[in-house]
Amino acid sequence: MAKSIGVIGGGQLARMMITPAQQLGLALKVLAESADASARLAASAVGDYKDLETVKAFAKTVDVITFDHEHVPLEILELLEAEGKEVQPSSAALKFAQNKLAMRERLTELGLPVPNWARVSSVEEVARFLVEFGPEAILKTPTGGYDGKGVMVITDPDQAKSWFEKFDNLLIEEKVDFVRELAQLSARSVTGEWLSWPVVETIQRNGVCSEVHSPARDADQEKAANLSKQIAEGLGVTGVLAVEMFETSDGRLLVNELAMRPHNSGHFSIEGSRTSQFEQHLRAVSGLPLGVTDATKPYAVMLNLLGVDDSNTFIEHYPIALNVAGAHIHTYGKSARAGRKMGHITALSDDSIEDAKAIAQKAKQALHA
Amino acid sequence: MAKSIGVIGGGQLARMMITPAQQLGLALKVLAESADASARLAASAVGDYKDLETVKAFAKTVDVITFDHEHVPLEILELLEAEGKEVQPSSAALKFAQNKLAMRERLTELGLPVPNWARVSSVEEVARFLVEFGPEAILKTPTGGYDGKGVMVITDPDQAKSWFEKFDNLLIEEKVDFVRELAQLSARSVTGEWLSWPVVETIQRNGVCSEVHSPARDADQEKAANLSKQIAEGLGVTGVLAVEMFETSDGRLLVNELAMRPHNSGHFSIEGSRTSQFEQHLRAVSGLPLGVTDATKPYAVMLNLLGVDDSNTFIEHYPIALNVAGAHIHTYGKSARAGRKMGHITALSDDSIEDAKAIAQKAKQALHA
Repeated sequence: MAKSIGVIGGGQLARMMITPAQQLGLALKVLAESADASARLAASAVGDYKDLETVKAFAKTVDVITFDHEHVPLEILELLEAEGKEVQPSSAALKFAQNKLAMRERLTELGLPVPNWARVSSVEEVARFLVEFGPEAILKTPTGGYDGKGVMVITDPDQAKSWFEKFDNLLIEEKVDFVRELAQLSARSVTGEWLSWPVVETIQRNGVCSEVHSPARDADQEKAANLSKQIAEGLGVTGVLAVEMFETSDGRLLVNELAMRPHNSGHFSIEGSRTSQFEQHLRAVSGLPLGVTDATKPYAVMLNLLGVDDSNTFIEHYPIALNVAGAHIHTYGKSARAGRKMGHITALSDDSIEDAKAIAQKAKQALHA
Repeated sequence: MAKSIGVIGGGQLARMMITPAQQLGLALKVLAESADASARLAASAVGDYKDLETVKAFAKTVDVITFDHEHVPLEILELLEAEGKEVQPSSAALKFAQNKLAMRERLTELGLPVPNWARVSSVEEVARFLVEFGPEAILKTPTGGYDGKGVMVITDPDQAKSWFEKFDNLLIEEKVDFVRELAQLSARSVTGEWLSWPVVETIQRNGVCSEVHSPARDADQEKAANLSKQIAEGLGVTGVLAVEMFETSDGRLLVNELAMRPHNSGHFSIEGSRTSQFEQHLRAVSGLPLGVTDATKPYAVMLNLLGVDDSNTFIEHYPIALNVAGAHIHTYGKSARAGRKMGHITALSDDSIEDAKAIAQKAKQALHA
């Protein structure tokens, strides 16, 4: 087993790994972007994750490298691996989370359900796709996108022009007429052990996750779990894997995005599961047995706390908000900025999603969020 | 509300405050004894808590001072308070946790049930007490005792001699013929709000807490809670208060010891209560509303992990032990030493104390503890 775990990236995901690392007494080190990063408490280094020497020096201090985000250049990870450093998920798996074209190609090879898509390298190819699958389509940059960035709904091929100045190839996909979006969280250990949480419904606003319901009402749990398992094994994923999916009106599940790390759709697991996604990620990447993923209560709702302006850090409203029984408020120690992911609230219920949501909403209102 | 909280002492209690502080985004700073202290992750200063200048410098960096242990000299705290620094619990309350004679006197004044006791300042007075309440009695140093240290069972007055060389006054108490030991954990906020957890049964081995059952089977919950509330209010306690009690065969509850901080008898609350004692302590000392203390499952058992030798840190056994579903293993990041509190295990059950204990025991065995 790996005794010390190095996380590249000091955001809220790294921050929330600190709790299970402390509990289990595992050494967790973080390479943070800045001294005031969300995970600053565990930051053993501050530096640029795109700089080979910075990452190499950090990697020397730990047994295994893992991630808070998927933006570390693949070449750097390949170099570390070539020198014998353990990287989990490996560069071979991570490339499918970094590059949406590579992901679409691989999932198609594996025969897994994805929206109609094409690799396009010119406005003409975009035009042809729009004729076949339009009038609307989704254009995506192969790399660098997150939270709605690098994604554009287009109706006119010329809308692709500016992105072709930066990328030789783009991904274009049909605009799926989905009923709702689901996310299947699971974890695969370096030993091959695999366990999933319930498939959840995710609700986005302006391209950013706003709300998560666990479990997704009347979803085909088995189908979603099997799909995720095929992806985890087919792509050689280690650690937590989030599979974001579209559910169509005829009940199909189409894979939208992948993330190979703890994910916003799994924050409910801190209180809602006997093993949180953060603990599970540490177990999985360090070769420890996975923890059971049974729900602690039948229903969970998570609401994101997005910044409303540059002054409300939410903490100043705690004297009122912490009175809301059953609302688990998390803030990430970030300075306030409109639209920024500043925290989240989870509430559980024995009775219903509505009941859990009402509790979380009450706390959210009390935080003026 | 206090936005930054300073904890004097870097042991496992401070360590376990890090999780709720991180979750809520409250700034937690620790004055640790050494750089490798259990709570080192949050250590903003390393130094001697008996040194006025060290403590003063640390206090300047936070809004409120609280504690991992009760050994900070009272004079230092009184000086801080005189300079306007908030100390919770206050020196006026903490003196009753530091000094067992003061505690016995105050509880007796309040008319609360305690064992027969006396302040003794000579071997002759010890002899007189033994004649009245012997043949055995318990001799205690007024200050400095913990985990069985500073406590002696005596039958012969001469056994007191060596302690009188160090202390002018000692506390002597009848040896209570108790059926079992109970502990009542509660918290009182700086606003006066008070909430308790279930009264638990504690089982000691060699004077050290070994096992906790929550709730204590067939205990008079209301009586124990009321007694604790009277103590919290009567002594002006803020933060978590642990009242250790003897239950006698005729159903009386006699107060044994007090602690004004999170306590070993309350570790079960991390998983077993909707608000853990560590979160509650932070809420209470910083003037935030207290969290609900409902149980997450009806039964909880906590087993301490005491060091078995100078090599077993328990972590090396995780590949087996973490397979035990439902056993929440905590280790404190300490080097191994026989008898040292190295960690604990909590297990919950819907069915019974026996069921929870069986799970915890299985994990303990797997850790070779």
